[in-house]
Amino acid sequence: MRREARVHRLSMRSPDDVAPLVAAIEAGRIAPAGLVAVLGKTEGNGCVNDFTRAFAVAALRAALSPHLAPDALDRVAMVMSGGTEGALAPHMLVIEVIEHADAAVGDGPALAVGSVRTPPLPPEELGRFGQIALVAEGVAAAMRAAGIVHADDVHFVQIKCPLLTAERIAATRARGGEPATSDTLKSMGLSRGAAALGVALALGEIDAATARGARIGADPSLWSGRASTSAGVELVDHEIVVLGTSIDWVGPLVVDHAVMADQIDLAPVAASLKRLGFSATSPIPADERDRLVALLAKAEAGTSGRLRGHRHTMLDDSDVSSTRHARAFVAGALAGLVGHAEIFVSGGAEHQGPDGGGPVALVVRRAS
Amino acid sequence: MRREARVHRLSMRSPDDVAPLVAAIEAGRIAPAGLVAVLGKTEGNGCVNDFTRAFAVAALRAALSPHLAPDALDRVAMVMSGGTEGALAPHMLVIEVIEHADAAVGDGPALAVGSVRTPPLPPEELGRFGQIALVAEGVAAAMRAAGIVHADDVHFVQIKCPLLTAERIAATRARGGEPATSDTLKSMGLSRGAAALGVALALGEIDAATARGARIGADPSLWSGRASTSAGVELVDHEIVVLGTSIDWVGPLVVDHAVMADQIDLAPVAASLKRLGFSATSPIPADERDRLVALLAKAEAGTSGRLRGHRHTMLDDSDVSSTRHARAFVAGALAGLVGHAEIFVSGGAEHQGPDGGGPVALVVRRAS
Amino acid sequence: MRREARVHRLSMRSPDDVAPLVAAIEAGRIAPAGLVAVLGKTEGNGCVNDFTRAFAVAALRAALSPHLAPDALDRVAMVMSGGTEGALAPHMLVIEVIEHADAAVGDGPALAVGSVRTPPLPPEELGRFGQIALVAEGVAAAMRAAGIVHADDVHFVQIKCPLLTAERIAATRARGGEPATSDTLKSMGLSRGAAALGVALALGEIDAATARGARIGADPSLWSGRASTSAGVELVDHEIVVLGTSIDWVGPLVVDHAVMADQIDLAPVAASLKRLGFSATSPIPADERDRLVALLAKAEAGTSGRLRGHRHTMLDDSDVSSTRHARAFVAGALAGLVGHAEIFVSGGAEHQGPDGGGPVALVVRRAS
Amino acid sequence: MRREARVHRLSMRSPDDVAPLVAAIEAGRIAPAGLVAVLGKTEGNGCVNDFTRAFAVAALRAALSPHLAPDALDRVAMVMSGGTEGALAPHMLVIEVIEHADAAVGDGPALAVGSVRTPPLPPEELGRFGQIALVAEGVAAAMRAAGIVHADDVHFVQIKCPLLTAERIAATRARGGEPATSDTLKSMGLSRGAAALGVALALGEIDAATARGARIGADPSLWSGRASTSAGVELVDHEIVVLGTSIDWVGPLVVDHAVMADQIDLAPVAASLKRLGFSATSPIPADERDRLVALLAKAEAGTSGRLRGHRHTMLDDSDVSSTRHARAFVAGALAGLVGHAEIFVSGGAEHQGPDGGGPVALVVRRAS
Repeated sequence: MRREARVHRLSMRSPDDVAPLVAAIEAGRIAPAGLVAVLGKTEGNGCVNDFTRAFAVAALRAALSPHLAPDALDRVAMVMSGGTEGALAPHMLVIEVIEHADAAVGDGPALAVGSVRTPPLPPEELGRFGQIALVAEGVAAAMRAAGIVHADDVHFVQIKCPLLTAERIAATRARGGEPATSDTLKSMGLSRGAAALGVALALGEIDAATARGARIGADPSLWSGRASTSAGVELVDHEIVVLGTSIDWVGPLVVDHAVMADQIDLAPVAASLKRLGFSATSPIPADERDRLVALLAKAEAGTSGRLRGHRHTMLDDSDVSSTRHARAFVAGALAGLVGHAEIFVSGGAEHQGPDGGGPVALVVRRAS
Repeated sequence: MRREARVHRLSMRSPDDVAPLVAAIEAGRIAPAGLVAVLGKTEGNGCVNDFTRAFAVAALRAALSPHLAPDALDRVAMVMSGGTEGALAPHMLVIEVIEHADAAVGDGPALAVGSVRTPPLPPEELGRFGQIALVAEGVAAAMRAAGIVHADDVHFVQIKCPLLTAERIAATRARGGEPATSDTLKSMGLSRGAAALGVALALGEIDAATARGARIGADPSLWSGRASTSAGVELVDHEIVVLGTSIDWVGPLVVDHAVMADQIDLAPVAASLKRLGFSATSPIPADERDRLVALLAKAEAGTSGRLRGHRHTMLDDSDVSSTRHARAFVAGALAGLVGHAEIFVSGGAEHQGPDGGGPVALVVRRAS
Repeated sequence: MRREARVHRLSMRSPDDVAPLVAAIEAGRIAPAGLVAVLGKTEGNGCVNDFTRAFAVAALRAALSPHLAPDALDRVAMVMSGGTEGALAPHMLVIEVIEHADAAVGDGPALAVGSVRTPPLPPEELGRFGQIALVAEGVAAAMRAAGIVHADDVHFVQIKCPLLTAERIAATRARGGEPATSDTLKSMGLSRGAAALGVALALGEIDAATARGARIGADPSLWSGRASTSAGVELVDHEIVVLGTSIDWVGPLVVDHAVMADQIDLAPVAASLKRLGFSATSPIPADERDRLVALLAKAEAGTSGRLRGHRHTMLDDSDVSSTRHARAFVAGALAGLVGHAEIFVSGGAEHQGPDGGGPVALVVRRAS
Repeated sequence: MRREARVHRLSMRSPDDVAPLVAAIEAGRIAPAGLVAVLGKTEGNGCVNDFTRAFAVAALRAALSPHLAPDALDRVAMVMSGGTEGALAPHMLVIEVIEHADAAVGDGPALAVGSVRTPPLPPEELGRFGQIALVAEGVAAAMRAAGIVHADDVHFVQIKCPLLTAERIAATRARGGEPATSDTLKSMGLSRGAAALGVALALGEIDAATARGARIGADPSLWSGRASTSAGVELVDHEIVVLGTSIDWVGPLVVDHAVMADQIDLAPVAASLKRLGFSATSPIPADERDRLVALLAKAEAGTSGRLRGHRHTMLDDSDVSSTRHARAFVAGALAGLVGHAEIFVSGGAEHQGPDGGGPVALVVRRAS
């Protein structure tokens, strides 16, 4: 038996727009039983009070419940990332796994996918080492689920992690705990950062001692080049999806990754595209555009307050969160390269790539 | 006598940061008597209640008043454009004109500059044909001031235009007038649009009958490819600065322009860079970066609600103005090409370039 | 047979929090078959891209679907009003009707309730007379449903009306129609205003000729003192709920209304409280607080840009919608009077009460 | 010689509107030499990137510089508080001191005023005990300047304190220091809180040991009932103005204060008004309105996430700062009591009054 991972990119007309997914299921293009994950970009603010994520998840669950038993439904990771600033297009990436009984389907390596859900995170562990450890175990489990043995074969780990709300903070304190912060927006950053360091630990990008001593959210020199984490108010555990390469998987899709050093560092992305067989032009030729099935990137403002020596104002803007600025700006840079903006740029890149930069993953169809 | 236009790009640490300008004057690098215009990107929201523009102008006037008599000071156009979304860097472009008595300074053509200030605009004319006509006369006058005869030699017209506030609307109605809108944010768009059509009329991009019948703010098929207009609460007239090419001007600077068809249409900008002698790579090589003295572009969301077929959410966002989204996104695309974000991207491109796109001007130093 | 209207005020922990409603149904305190309407204050921005309203409706429908057949479910009006600025508490008002077979249940008059749903509104009629007429017919139908004969016995009409999105505008134009505006946020105001004038027409507050000639959204001298309208992206028709007094209804609840002349005009509200048997103190005594079951009010900024002679800045703020400012401010004034902020203040009071003011409805339990 | 403090409340049409002040000086109603302080409510967001404060200060300095020598000008405290949410009216309170050579001018006690400016605060002391100590010394000095001996005679201490920007944080780190936070918005709260505890220490509301061990920004049980602190990007030291009562001062003005326990706790304010001779009605009678020269209050969201048992959403809103919500809401409550909204409500009440509440000061003209 050989496994094949398929990735479907579906446009969304609203956070609860599951019509394209339903149509694909009804037409037989997607088999619900093979669903592993749905990654969605929804059009909220991407911050604490972004209910578009939970709304999308509720709509997805309602749409899939006729097709999947409750426990099977719970095993589908639903990682919504809020914020479609600039011209970013709301869309979902639906990942399914097909099992081929016939070994003659072809040879790998190809895109491999694994997912897990961690146990709930106690609010007082959020943004602390407990969260790093919990996530690292989850990533290892997801790799096992995907049949990926070597950390080098992992190209992207998408994680949805929890955040603190005023209510959760009060409840934690009521039972004697003290959260890492009482600032709800800041809790999103701490959670994203700790989850990313969990990935770094699992992939060997940092060692256990470093992870244990890490100043989470304060030391940007520690990072994973393959983590992408988003915080959401709608969960208290972690949903983890690992994308990598495995000789045991088949199909036309492959995955690669790049690390941008700053918000406009397109060269590593262009190099990845070249490795994947694209023409070395910017933008890529229009007739190659469809081969790029999914582009996922992290964006952040950079703590120096500067981009290549020039001051930016993202961190001093109290009207618009810096995560919103960064998503819009990085989306413009990447869209200029790949020729459209239905790309998955998520904000809040704490410990994900170097300060001001971030990891990028590309899922492409092999050139025929 | 031959004239030379110089453009100085100075970083700003705050809206009222005139220290680099003062330092340049004190060091003799800028002669106050030759100042024609200061174009600034300031870090406000770029919308109605953006006081960073007026603050910057007040600081500039205070800094220059020891050097210039009041009437000379009034002749320096100070066009502040609010909004440094994404990594856009607050900066000012200081334009001065040097007069060379010695004809041996060299030959043109080179960058030519002219500026004027129109009479005050009655609030009830804002966003109506009266504003188009007033601006068209102003552009013609600015061309004459620059010694530019042919409209084809004009590459950019930067205009600061007025807007309506709740107080101005009330005052207009109190004396029996009815403004074109009672929505203050919308008044900015109408004013920018009418001013842009004034440029189009002056440059022959549209004819007088078309201008007179134009549905301002509602018919995106009418546009100028060389207008850049910004609205500000701090003025009730128009400040107009024309940038073009003239055989009578000398110096190392030249200007060109491009028209982007949408927010990520970088090809025309890349073509302009190539015409100007840059290497045809994206991004341009780091060692050519300094030759690009100024890049000015307009950004807007596009009324179709789509970019290359994919939905964007800029026009439906009630938390962040679409002008802010568009500036951040287009800035990312352009910064990815030119390698930094100290560029002059201004929002609100009504009738400036095609729907969703916009004009771009490039001032460069000739390759030596 | 005598009817009794009951109003349950249930706190919400999130837009999709239906747990209190489910608990009340399971405990037998609410009978699903009698549900007429659910009015909810949800914690979005109350503007175009406020998905908390649709999210709440989706959660309500999912919670009620085990109890009600689809057509019965569709008859429950679900009017979500976004925006809980200041300390406004998210909550829902659940309105049910009990039918008493025994005539001995007591005598009226008491609170009477009726609701209807209009046919869909063509987008090009939004903000125009067609919408006024459609709503006026709907109000008359809702009065009939409630058995209210005289317009004077109507104290409040809550309406949820549609708005324009970029997509709807494009679709309308594609088939040759021209919407009243292309500004999505502005469309909310036009829709609210036309719906309110529909109420005024139905209740005889304006006559048909006035309604037909009304400058919708531009002539604040026309208004209803009993309309409360909210626009939502999630519907294309109108949901109308009429609250009034009828001799044919029984039970402990009564309703009254007041009209505030400006955002801090509390005297008419205090007078209504006095009529309803409350002590004439401000705030009302803590032990009378529970008798006030529901307070519903409209808030808006006032087009003059002034409150009692002093300038306000709500209409010039491009970062925060004036509707958000007004809700927070009026909520503070009313909460200071009634002693808490779990009150239903909704924004956008176009043609609802005089310019800058608005209608207020009070549902109270009779003093025992 | 007897001193008299005068307070002039002047409406502002924009942040730089000094016309009413200039007119008052020219008409002889205000003598520049006696100016002690100008407290202004300006129409920015009241957060990090609120440049309306600096703009107002620049305009004030320019307007006063023809009348005052530079060192005299520097001694005028200019405390701008950003944020005029809801219907709050931008205005300035101009405080001047008149010296009467003739002892026959009458008897005290009356309003007494003193002001000082502290030395610059090192950024690494911001939000730490060093700031508390620096402010406590400043308050004591201001009391001495006012001739106020007993802490009980102090009714209000208005302080403008610094904040951290991305640039200041980077500079501090560059020389080896570590600021208390790297979150610029959060730095405003820490600075306000430490400054308030400095007032509490100076007035004996907390003792030195408590101050030294205070968890600044985290322990809301420590507070001053008379401090009002605002953070601004435009200064690096503190401007302190003390308002109190002294037998040595004369004139018609008196001052009192109240402490609100939560955002709608108007009873202590009403009690103060009664003590000051106002009728005990709410709102106060229109013909007594003018006697209230100035009302200054602090507003904040309350860390419990609740107001009188009901959830509020201010702390979870990532689009609008909780400080903006709180100002609008508390302004509504107070305006409902005093009958207009040209009142000085400033946000960010960390350690100023109990959690969710805040101090209120009232300057009134004695009943004649």
